[in-house]
Amino acid sequence: MGRSSKVYKYEKLTADVAHLIESGTFRPGDRIPSVRQMSRQKQVSVTTVLQAYYLLEAQGLIEARPQSGFYVRTTLPTALPEPDMSSPHPDPTQVSMRELVAMVVRDPLNPDLVQMGAAHPNPALSATKKLNRIMSSIARHMGDRSGLYDYSPGNETLRVQIAKRALVAGCILGPDDLVITSGCSEAVSLCLRAVCRRGDTVAIESPICFDTLQCLEAMDLQVLEIPTHPRDGISLDALRFAIEHNPVRACLVISNFNNPLGSCIPNEKKKELVEMLAGYDVPLIENDIFGEIYFSEQRPLVAKAYDHEGLVMLCSSFSKALCPGYRVGWAAAGRFKPTVEWLKYTFSLAAPTLPELAVAEFMSSGGLDPYLRRIRRIYESRLASLSRAVTRFFPEGTRLTRPSGGFVLWVQLPDSVDSLELYKQALKAGIAIAPGYLFSATDQYRNFIRLNAANWSDEAERAIERLGELTIELAG
Amino acid sequence: MGRSSKVYKYEKLTADVAHLIESGTFRPGDRIPSVRQMSRQKQVSVTTVLQAYYLLEAQGLIEARPQSGFYVRTTLPTALPEPDMSSPHPDPTQVSMRELVAMVVRDPLNPDLVQMGAAHPNPALSATKKLNRIMSSIARHMGDRSGLYDYSPGNETLRVQIAKRALVAGCILGPDDLVITSGCSEAVSLCLRAVCRRGDTVAIESPICFDTLQCLEAMDLQVLEIPTHPRDGISLDALRFAIEHNPVRACLVISNFNNPLGSCIPNEKKKELVEMLAGYDVPLIENDIFGEIYFSEQRPLVAKAYDHEGLVMLCSSFSKALCPGYRVGWAAAGRFKPTVEWLKYTFSLAAPTLPELAVAEFMSSGGLDPYLRRIRRIYESRLASLSRAVTRFFPEGTRLTRPSGGFVLWVQLPDSVDSLELYKQALKAGIAIAPGYLFSATDQYRNFIRLNAANWSDEAERAIERLGELTIELAG
Repeated sequence: MGRSSKVYKYEKLTADVAHLIESGTFRPGDRIPSVRQMSRQKQVSVTTVLQAYYLLEAQGLIEARPQSGFYVRTTLPTALPEPDMSSPHPDPTQVSMRELVAMVVRDPLNPDLVQMGAAHPNPALSATKKLNRIMSSIARHMGDRSGLYDYSPGNETLRVQIAKRALVAGCILGPDDLVITSGCSEAVSLCLRAVCRRGDTVAIESPICFDTLQCLEAMDLQVLEIPTHPRDGISLDALRFAIEHNPVRACLVISNFNNPLGSCIPNEKKKELVEMLAGYDVPLIENDIFGEIYFSEQRPLVAKAYDHEGLVMLCSSFSKALCPGYRVGWAAAGRFKPTVEWLKYTFSLAAPTLPELAVAEFMSSGGLDPYLRRIRRIYESRLASLSRAVTRFFPEGTRLTRPSGGFVLWVQLPDSVDSLELYKQALKAGIAIAPGYLFSATDQYRNFIRLNAANWSDEAERAIERLGELTIELAG
Repeated sequence: MGRSSKVYKYEKLTADVAHLIESGTFRPGDRIPSVRQMSRQKQVSVTTVLQAYYLLEAQGLIEARPQSGFYVRTTLPTALPEPDMSSPHPDPTQVSMRELVAMVVRDPLNPDLVQMGAAHPNPALSATKKLNRIMSSIARHMGDRSGLYDYSPGNETLRVQIAKRALVAGCILGPDDLVITSGCSEAVSLCLRAVCRRGDTVAIESPICFDTLQCLEAMDLQVLEIPTHPRDGISLDALRFAIEHNPVRACLVISNFNNPLGSCIPNEKKKELVEMLAGYDVPLIENDIFGEIYFSEQRPLVAKAYDHEGLVMLCSSFSKALCPGYRVGWAAAGRFKPTVEWLKYTFSLAAPTLPELAVAEFMSSGGLDPYLRRIRRIYESRLASLSRAVTRFFPEGTRLTRPSGGFVLWVQLPDSVDSLELYKQALKAGIAIAPGYLFSATDQYRNFIRLNAANWSDEAERAIERLGELTIELAG
């Protein structure tokens, strides 16, 4: 742990002090606790405190006064406003963004770029090493049996673990309610297949991650983009109106920490959403891939928790929380479960056996909770650092989301800035970002970008400074 | 190796001597070499020779004469005839066999059954342990990096290895021609998706494995079953007629060792097939999953070797030859490659990283060829043993295929025997088989069964004896 645990402590401390300042506990001009005091109070080394204070100083939150200590600056960087509720195009649309996506998804493969675009978890924070050790041990002990087909619905031990875990998200599930998939993407595409046919219309949150839009495009489905609030998600009024006026076959939301918005539908509103859709007999496909990466005290529930009709199809995976490369996801598809199980069988027969078993063992060994507690704190702190850097370096007119989970930030640039142009200029400067065009089928977000805080570092901060300069140039 | 290598030697010897008898080198009444002579000639232990001779005696091929040695029996079991060319229903048909398949695919999970049905490779002969060791080592050395997304088209190192390997099948491929998939099933389903839409008609060999039929059913495609010869595969005349009279959108064959027929389209005929389809601009989806398990001197080429138009979409995997549970397959989709790559991305983003890397390392380390040489001999010998047992125990009127690769046997029972009834009675007797109904969308094969030779053993032989009795009862 050594070095990496010190890095996390100083990041956490930075975030804590910044929070105390931003919430007004320490006010402009206040002296903050001395390095020695803070070191005692927080049980961290003096070096850690100094690192945190220097970072806060660089971020413009505090200043050092010789012979006296650190003080909250009297002119704090102004907090940037949030984007408004989205107002996408009101008609169903055919998605058509294949070429743009094909270009952008190459970026994460380029090791020369500072990766601020793709919504990948940080490899160094992933549970990969731990999972690898578990998988190696299982591989050794099981021998030949570890290579058998694990036909759909997938490994039972893993399904038992996932069903147990679903309790904290408010769901009563049995292992027989679950189908193991190749990540959340396959879960979503199988659920769509179970309820939609070519040409059908699907109501979705807007903005939404381009993987989802691409999946809808590949299936020749029409998307109907529903206004979505950056804090509490899809507008129920707009959704109701859309269903009343269009042949909506299914609704798809990222209920907890929408990618890219970071919005989280409040539990009561989830209940309302589920009841409303049940009234229209419209299935809800719920993507909860970020659900475990929450910053509040309590895990937000899933909409599936309020499902009495078997109409909610909950999809998730361990790709964001544990390790993308294991490709272990699942669907709890309610009344459509037999169809989803069968479709999984017809498309790819079975999930890879060893990754399933490794994840199951990690969960049953009790390793998941301590691990998640640790990365939640880190991602929260990194999102805060990224937000502060954007606030500091981006021009007036910029707006920022306030995610309460996940690790991405959705940034609204001044109207005159074209995100595709910024994307191209950033690439030349060695920085990968995700242009807003990718998050809508109807070009809603030309002056938006998505930034990933997962890999936050000094290099990332310099990249944000450079992006700020480029944005200022483009804003003219 | 110890014990297991001795088992294989005696199996090989059994097959060799049986071949010498069946081909007439040793004729009825001939004395075969003494145990001591054979042990010297073949450089195997006396025990090994004795085991082989006892097995040949049990199979009715030789008999021991006291004080004199072993002799070829004067009344050899009659070789059963082959099934005729299939003659399926001439019109396109909607597949509808979901419930039957759902019942049968549960059987391999039941450890109390003697597994003669599912076309699974033998776990004890698989490369699983070796792959597991490689994967564990890679997991340790790569650490966090082994958990990254390996986006479609998949790992380049693996694609390079597969492209090199394709040379022996007659294909000039570059790594950029390949898309890594979750087994051959996903490869086939992505290729179908790339060229077909709901309601389109696909010409297929008949019989064909039910996984393929299920995939076509799930995609709402019509199948047109083409007469297929048990030795040289799909009838080109019948295929031409079908294309002339139906809107055939694609053709799908298991070119080398059709499952269940064991047929292998001769290389010259493959060339003709590819040229004919090119004349109609009809894409060919070629499943080569059994291509590496051949019993002749030379690997049969793939149809893709004759493809000048980019119209052949070659699909394969390591599930039959190495290890099913790794789920590593691929498609070389010619002119449709960009679409297949994109579809893979939209449905499940990426393949699991570590299994890809393990297979790539196994290939580049030179482990593949020695391994395949060994299992080819074993499967050939086991198919021969299974054929002899069926010949011995099944009633007159039974017909048998003569597969030159793979590990399954297609058995035509007397007309009066219903394979579903036999399936049910066999289950009661603790034996799993695959009833012929599963291999056609139009109930062509009600008096056929597929048997798997991969798990051949004394227990399997007793199961075949019992199946023979049940068949005789049902034949009335």
